[in-house]
Amino acid sequence: MTRLIKRLSHSKKLAWCKSNIILKNDFSFDMNISELGEFGLIDRISSNIKTMNPSTKTGIGDDAAIIFANGDEVTLVSTDMFMEGIHFNLVYVDMMHLGYKTAMAAMSDIFAMNAMPSQMLVSIALSHRFAVEDVDAFYDGVKRACGKWNVDVVGGDTTSSLTGLAVTMTCIGHAKEAEIVKRSGAKDTDLICVSGDLGAAYMGVQILEREKSVYYQQIRDIQQKYSDKEIQKKHIDALLFNPEFSGKEYLIERQLQPEARGDVINTLREIGVHPTSMIDISDGLASELMHICKASGCGCRIFEKSIPIDYQTAVAAEEFNMNLTTCALNGGDDYELLFTVPIGDLSKVENREGIKLIGHITKPQYGAVLVTRDDNEFQLKAQGWHEKK
Amino acid sequence: MTRLIKRLSHSKKLAWCKSNIILKNDFSFDMNISELGEFGLIDRISSNIKTMNPSTKTGIGDDAAIIFANGDEVTLVSTDMFMEGIHFNLVYVDMMHLGYKTAMAAMSDIFAMNAMPSQMLVSIALSHRFAVEDVDAFYDGVKRACGKWNVDVVGGDTTSSLTGLAVTMTCIGHAKEAEIVKRSGAKDTDLICVSGDLGAAYMGVQILEREKSVYYQQIRDIQQKYSDKEIQKKHIDALLFNPEFSGKEYLIERQLQPEARGDVINTLREIGVHPTSMIDISDGLASELMHICKASGCGCRIFEKSIPIDYQTAVAAEEFNMNLTTCALNGGDDYELLFTVPIGDLSKVENREGIKLIGHITKPQYGAVLVTRDDNEFQLKAQGWHEKK
Repeated sequence: MTRLIKRLSHSKKLAWCKSNIILKNDFSFDMNISELGEFGLIDRISSNIKTMNPSTKTGIGDDAAIIFANGDEVTLVSTDMFMEGIHFNLVYVDMMHLGYKTAMAAMSDIFAMNAMPSQMLVSIALSHRFAVEDVDAFYDGVKRACGKWNVDVVGGDTTSSLTGLAVTMTCIGHAKEAEIVKRSGAKDTDLICVSGDLGAAYMGVQILEREKSVYYQQIRDIQQKYSDKEIQKKHIDALLFNPEFSGKEYLIERQLQPEARGDVINTLREIGVHPTSMIDISDGLASELMHICKASGCGCRIFEKSIPIDYQTAVAAEEFNMNLTTCALNGGDDYELLFTVPIGDLSKVENREGIKLIGHITKPQYGAVLVTRDDNEFQLKAQGWHEKK
Repeated sequence: MTRLIKRLSHSKKLAWCKSNIILKNDFSFDMNISELGEFGLIDRISSNIKTMNPSTKTGIGDDAAIIFANGDEVTLVSTDMFMEGIHFNLVYVDMMHLGYKTAMAAMSDIFAMNAMPSQMLVSIALSHRFAVEDVDAFYDGVKRACGKWNVDVVGGDTTSSLTGLAVTMTCIGHAKEAEIVKRSGAKDTDLICVSGDLGAAYMGVQILEREKSVYYQQIRDIQQKYSDKEIQKKHIDALLFNPEFSGKEYLIERQLQPEARGDVINTLREIGVHPTSMIDISDGLASELMHICKASGCGCRIFEKSIPIDYQTAVAAEEFNMNLTTCALNGGDDYELLFTVPIGDLSKVENREGIKLIGHITKPQYGAVLVTRDDNEFQLKAQGWHEKK
């Protein structure tokens, strides 16, 4: 088991940068989980977890968590599963970032309902190759993410795995029923908006994958150069992984440490905009737009030139010889918000920093259409986009 | 991938019996998941799921489920993770029983709070070896279990796995706050009760493991007898697995198709008993007693002779040359309820069918004690029991 571990600063920000990245060929921690036992592990986890949200009545320590809702509020529940090798690669994701990202992804679903997250249940299945310190780091990441939005860790499950690491996050939120925004409320002529920019996390993972390949090549070179296994190991252990992230810091951070856009929810409330539909962009803009169109029974028309893309994303797409719009449409892990607002709210959302108008809702018979920079029209597909017939 | 698949009757009861068990050496279904696509799979799952619980406002189909609680009720949330090879073995657990059992296990946690389950979020991570029909069978099991207790499937996650199958069930329930029973309320002189009987599911898994070994031996014999791979395969494919479950049906059923004891919760309400503490027995009586003693700050004294054990369990323990009490104390998967009631409720619970008095709560300094049939005293441990010092 090989992975990169960054010496994480204990500052609030878990910034990834090109320095201080150390390659470890195996885990070399003090204590393994079986030494501590299940009771001990749960005690260790729960002793560091305090609850603070007023809707939390009882957290960890019983068969179920107990949660209050104010008289006029409903409870929202969402659950996400993250599998090693599918959703994350421990070669370049450390446990703290994994905890942070999975918690943020779960909160993102609650924000996408125009609600505020309040509780989190954290389940993790670990194989024996993990140490107690890994679990600590994972929960540290979860707590940092939850702490940003006053979300209490109120329960979960800690179990063994014979194979890969598996994480399930269940996030609970509350909102007044009238405040909730579903996927199904978009109407003809509504404006389509996205927060932030798209495709950066996707380019981030391309870079991390490339750096992983470079590192694996170095290992293969050592294995070819030295036949003695001991000497091989010595050289591999001494390998310092020093990936070149200069000028790509934003992309790496977007991939490893995404932020759920609760701030956008707050902004919309402040400016008095109540979206007609909303979804978070976890699987790519195209796929999420299709969800809104399907749930709302409508079509949409978005403009390639309006899709918000960061400069670093554009440079990286060029470097990888990838189509930038495809990256923005289909690249996952953005965790931005996609929402529609009535046309009457145009003045409230246009030119608003961090919110970009990318098109408008149409009647269902027009389908989901992308208008390219050269005014060609393409039919959007859940994955990819194809020439309109 | 080898496993046993039973032709499941579509009757309400998914009884396992010795007949009709067919061994399949591989999956031979019509449709694989990638053919259907993620959108198609989610549509397929959700189209068969109807909600009926009045507290369910919106189920599958958005970023989060929306749940109401009555004005004076609180919401309870519990989550459980089940990993292939750790919690279940697909060699002898089919997908329908897996769905049924994992859903029952999740509901059991809500019952253990003296609450009624109302919603379920179902997450499953599948590798490419599974077919759409497997997913259908899994959800069929989930729905049968949930249907028994009027629980709505309101969401979840369906994702890929590179390795084993992983399932996470999140169960939501509601109760008036005053009704809730925690682990922490047991007091000196309270009576300790358990529902049903213990150790049967543990003996069930011993039998299934033995049958699996027998079957694997048959395969090895064929492999030794025939050198030609084609002929080997033909004989292995033709192998009919016919395990001897006669007289052990109860044990097999307890392992593969446990029932969460909502009926006991209803009985306790009917007879006017409000437990002072409660927990469900998923990891063995000893471990759960320790949880109650720790949470309540008390000791306990239970009597070996009072531990309820089924006749089939006793016979099987004899057959496997195992200590019966150890099986009942430490065997998992019982999903019975362990609870304490005030001594004043003695007349209400004694001689009540399906409820067994096994001991009483003591002051903390006495520890957790098992009194054996020959009046020796042992200190209970979370796993196993050791001579008292």
